[in-house]
Amino acid sequence: MQDVAHVSAAHPVEFEVDASAYRHWNITYDGALARVAMNVDAAAPLREGYELKLNSYDLGVDIELADIVRRMRFEHPEVRTVVLTSGNDRVFCAGANIHMLGLSTHAWKVNFCKFTNETRCEIEDATESSKQVWVAACNGTTAGGGYELAMACKEIYLQDDGNSAVSLPEVPLLGVLPGTGGLTRLVDKRKVRRDRADVFSTTAEGIRGKKAVQWNLVDAIFPRSKFDEKVLERAKAVADAASKDLAPGTRKGVVLGKLAPEVGPSGRQYRHVSLTWDDTTRTASLTVAGPSAADVRTIEQGGEAMREAGSDLWSLRAWRELDDALLHLRVNHMKVGLVTVRTTGDLATIQAHDAALVKARDHWYAREVLLHMARVLRRFDNTSRSFFAFGDAGTAFAGCLLELALASDRFYMLEQDGVQVAMSELNEGGLPMHNTLTRLQTRLLGTPDQVEALVGKREPMDAEAADDAGLVTVRLDDIDWDDDTRIAIEERSSMSPDALTGMEQNLRFPGPETPDSKIYARLSAWQNWIFIRPNATGPAGALTLYGRPERPHFDWQRV
Amino acid sequence: MQDVAHVSAAHPVEFEVDASAYRHWNITYDGALARVAMNVDAAAPLREGYELKLNSYDLGVDIELADIVRRMRFEHPEVRTVVLTSGNDRVFCAGANIHMLGLSTHAWKVNFCKFTNETRCEIEDATESSKQVWVAACNGTTAGGGYELAMACKEIYLQDDGNSAVSLPEVPLLGVLPGTGGLTRLVDKRKVRRDRADVFSTTAEGIRGKKAVQWNLVDAIFPRSKFDEKVLERAKAVADAASKDLAPGTRKGVVLGKLAPEVGPSGRQYRHVSLTWDDTTRTASLTVAGPSAADVRTIEQGGEAMREAGSDLWSLRAWRELDDALLHLRVNHMKVGLVTVRTTGDLATIQAHDAALVKARDHWYAREVLLHMARVLRRFDNTSRSFFAFGDAGTAFAGCLLELALASDRFYMLEQDGVQVAMSELNEGGLPMHNTLTRLQTRLLGTPDQVEALVGKREPMDAEAADDAGLVTVRLDDIDWDDDTRIAIEERSSMSPDALTGMEQNLRFPGPETPDSKIYARLSAWQNWIFIRPNATGPAGALTLYGRPERPHFDWQRV
Repeated sequence: MQDVAHVSAAHPVEFEVDASAYRHWNITYDGALARVAMNVDAAAPLREGYELKLNSYDLGVDIELADIVRRMRFEHPEVRTVVLTSGNDRVFCAGANIHMLGLSTHAWKVNFCKFTNETRCEIEDATESSKQVWVAACNGTTAGGGYELAMACKEIYLQDDGNSAVSLPEVPLLGVLPGTGGLTRLVDKRKVRRDRADVFSTTAEGIRGKKAVQWNLVDAIFPRSKFDEKVLERAKAVADAASKDLAPGTRKGVVLGKLAPEVGPSGRQYRHVSLTWDDTTRTASLTVAGPSAADVRTIEQGGEAMREAGSDLWSLRAWRELDDALLHLRVNHMKVGLVTVRTTGDLATIQAHDAALVKARDHWYAREVLLHMARVLRRFDNTSRSFFAFGDAGTAFAGCLLELALASDRFYMLEQDGVQVAMSELNEGGLPMHNTLTRLQTRLLGTPDQVEALVGKREPMDAEAADDAGLVTVRLDDIDWDDDTRIAIEERSSMSPDALTGMEQNLRFPGPETPDSKIYARLSAWQNWIFIRPNATGPAGALTLYGRPERPHFDWQRV
Repeated sequence: MQDVAHVSAAHPVEFEVDASAYRHWNITYDGALARVAMNVDAAAPLREGYELKLNSYDLGVDIELADIVRRMRFEHPEVRTVVLTSGNDRVFCAGANIHMLGLSTHAWKVNFCKFTNETRCEIEDATESSKQVWVAACNGTTAGGGYELAMACKEIYLQDDGNSAVSLPEVPLLGVLPGTGGLTRLVDKRKVRRDRADVFSTTAEGIRGKKAVQWNLVDAIFPRSKFDEKVLERAKAVADAASKDLAPGTRKGVVLGKLAPEVGPSGRQYRHVSLTWDDTTRTASLTVAGPSAADVRTIEQGGEAMREAGSDLWSLRAWRELDDALLHLRVNHMKVGLVTVRTTGDLATIQAHDAALVKARDHWYAREVLLHMARVLRRFDNTSRSFFAFGDAGTAFAGCLLELALASDRFYMLEQDGVQVAMSELNEGGLPMHNTLTRLQTRLLGTPDQVEALVGKREPMDAEAADDAGLVTVRLDDIDWDDDTRIAIEERSSMSPDALTGMEQNLRFPGPETPDSKIYARLSAWQNWIFIRPNATGPAGALTLYGRPERPHFDWQRV
């Protein structure tokens, strides 16, 4: 198998893209309306070995889409409606590129699906939380991942031309699942009847016209001649309903500047974030520096001052850097199994930062900064690496940075004068996990009284107090610190990476479930299983043979 | 690989066992107290090739346990406390037998885990719904599946002897998950802190003594000298608290008689249930006959008359037969991918049956009969085969039997005079799915007004009316019936069995999640994935090499 996913130190995948030169998307603005047209350049795949025909996508196409969704929220806050459509006259989107999938390693497929899932969840977050409403104008064939993308939008309009259909042909044609949220959004978001969903998901040619509306697969159909006009009319009405309290025209965007980290053979240094890795021990070290007093003063002046400070404000930049570091780790350093997490800075400054940010949140920009922070933390939650947070000398796990310790699988804390942690408003809300709870509520699910006792507590806690409060996994004095943490790292690094992934995924998210958590924890797990079954990816598997004359050969055993 | 799971027509696994001669369990009764001691006969595995040392279990051991749990509810309703303990002086239970797992095919492992999960959920159902409270008296090493079994009990008592520990060593020792509910019950049922759960699940030797209590891994520890006495004292208190409204001594049990189906080369004929299979087309046909007027008259006389009628009453017997048929299908006919489901009988009689049963439910036996029916239906929901319900001439999908159509992936209904379906009280409650909803609520999740409109509706509905009500997937006239259903069967039977399993698992359970649904849909999916990863089951995988001197060899890529 040629491995299109082959990533070397010389050719890492980069997640920062040049927004002035997207290769696969055309964006036009008209006041409160934006039009994002998918127009995939077939000759520009991320890796060699396949062509991106029929508006099919690979990771490169999706990295651009993720950039578009994010920038739209910061750079174009005047936009209320985003019409997602196609620049191709006959095909809205044919889904993930099958040849790319066929050429990819298992790990690449899983990483690819996770990233695309996160982008689709971000479209929903923009729609729900920022009232920047995405709608899908399906002006042609909408198949597989194309329909999954449409389902991430608030409404779906399908061209009624006797030909354009929506479909999820993965099961009948490829022997895999519509795993980018497809099955979950079908029955849990759109609430399509489960028996109809069964018919739909096994009908390769899909469903079109009135039946698509009746089954709630789409929200409306419009004839070809009136498609653009009707879409616009309805999309505006949807956006108006969603954001009726919003004063138009008062928002000025903030351009997201380049992060441009210093990249070396064993590390990436950003302004506030440092990521280093050691391929021999298969470990990495992630350090996030807290805000400065100047950052805090800016925020204390309110949302408009924050906006004027632009994307260099710590509250945005540090978290964009962390996001980039996490993605880099996921895709370019797959053998790194354990990440130690540290923070530096001043506890009181972080607390002041969080308090000021929460106070400013009525301003759209402050709100976006908070929503962004929450999304990065959810990316952290969903990253399949073991995280050990180390609260040793010089540590600064307070408020939003304490979330990194709470998101980690373990938190080691040193018993020493001056080593402390502290709470802020942001540990009590504003940065929800996919299970809707705060990380504190999730951690202390069995002892809600401990959560209650921490509400409003702002005094710093030393290791003993933090341990009593339920925040610390392992408390060590400085005699034991080096040996015990070294042994913990070595032990963790010796265990089966697969078992650790499965274990962490099941321990990190107790409590309630949401469509998002179902997508990441349940649908994705089934898809991962199917992706390594010979019936899909063996020499005679359906995914392998797609597009070839041979018929797949199945082991008929039902598991 | 020797396949211990090899099942032939000549040697099918049977799920009915001789309750007078359990091989692996000793049961003693003392009034309201029962003691179930695990005492596995190492020399009596279900298949050849491994020994069941150290109270480890295989499917044969668990089939007996399932029988014990079920019989206890029907045959010993006077029992309020069940103390689950070990007949072995040093080992409570060492979990699933590793050598058996190492020798088993993937499909066997998955089936085995599903059945053991169902048994553990039934222990919880007995505890919660029947107030027959199971507690675990861990009088020795409680490892892996042994601790998972203990976690299914309401409370766990551990002997404090400096040696006995509870542990989940699957991740560090075997490279697989504690997948029989372990990880889920740890953080979702016992609400152990997720970071402590991380430490515990990666510590092979486990945790004992006071720390086990502090971390809520067990509910109490007692010294060896006082263990039996203290367990009894506390277990009685727990049971008294659970069933304080229960008048003691008024219940007389019902012995569960043998089902003894007629077994042929292509079918099993029970009194009310018929299962036939065709290995060429990989399809099976399941038919359930409804109750007789005499059955209904018995029930109308109330719970005590029902009890006197014994286990031959349709309401119990037919559902025990269905349960046995489903298990037989799962384990002995793995290549059957599609099951057509039919019912026969009289709609009004079934409706009268359901109404009488619901009326009698204040009697313990009527309640047990209902709880049993609900469990069998959940086994149906969790069976990884495609189910197409066929409502053609002579059909009797009413009330409790209509649940079979609602549980099926599709319901085909014939447009013909006399072909009707009908609702009863049991479609409105009493037979909940794992997601806590009725099957009607689940099906009509997006249109709760349709659910509302059906409440109290008792007039039979023809195909058109049933379709309007949202109950029918495909409505066909008699000209199309044969061809269209034949094509549907052929199409379904041609698709990848893995993709269908994953798809059905994601479409059948929209809506809320519970620990049970997390165990079946999320934890199990991750375990299934890990079970086929080379890091676990490859030639140098951790599960394969367990007990041998070689160290496992891992592909370190994190997925």
